Amino acid sequence: MKQIDRANCPIQRATNIVKDQWSILIIREFFLEGARKFTDLQSHLKLSPNTLSDRLKRLEDSGVIDRHLYTQHPPRAEYRLTEKGKALGPVMDALYNWGMNNTPDL
Amino acid sequence: MKQIDRANCPIQRATNIVKDQWSILIIREFFLEGARKFTDLQSHLKLSPNTLSDRLKRLEDSGVIDRHLYTQHPPRAEYRLTEKGKALGPVMDALYNWGMNNTPDL
Repeated sequence: MKQIDRANCPIQRATNIVKDQWSILIIREFFLEGARKFTDLQSHLKLSPNTLSDRLKRLEDSGVIDRHLYTQHPPRAEYRLTEKGKALGPVMDALYNWGMNNTPDL
Repeated sequence: MKQIDRANCPIQRATNIVKDQWSILIIREFFLEGARKFTDLQSHLKLSPNTLSDRLKRLEDSGVIDRHLYTQHPPRAEYRLTEKGKALGPVMDALYNWGMNNTPDL
């Protein structure tokens, strides 16, 4: 790893957005499944609506995902990765590989 | 990213250990500086002793870092990355690169 100015560190900036395990697991869902509704995410991840809503809002405000509203009856919203979100692929791959090689099966 | 069995997902296993921003920033310090004392980490990261102690314990229990006690006066303990911890290099690099390319300067 390169030397880093801690006051303006890219790792800190990245983890201001991808801040915790839930954020990472939410992003994983988009890589696995593409566009996702709120209820899809909730049923796969088993997290509280408040927690999910909070993490989605941060990811959306940060430009990692965006939300599309379909004018159907009933109206339907889907979230999906932006280009900036898709650029997290190497982070997810690195976590996957480290987890595979360095952690026991659950 | 490969298809994943969510019940035994390597990304989930990895982030059970590297669980939050503090854990990642602590690991960053070891990559930047090598062996670190508790007080070194605290002064660079400006986090509470309880939070630091909690995160170090999880990283030590998970085999990412180990602790060396030197029999000096006063006794001195240093933490450092194990081989398993050093294997997180690609995760840190991927976060660094994403932060550099996708987040504004602080």
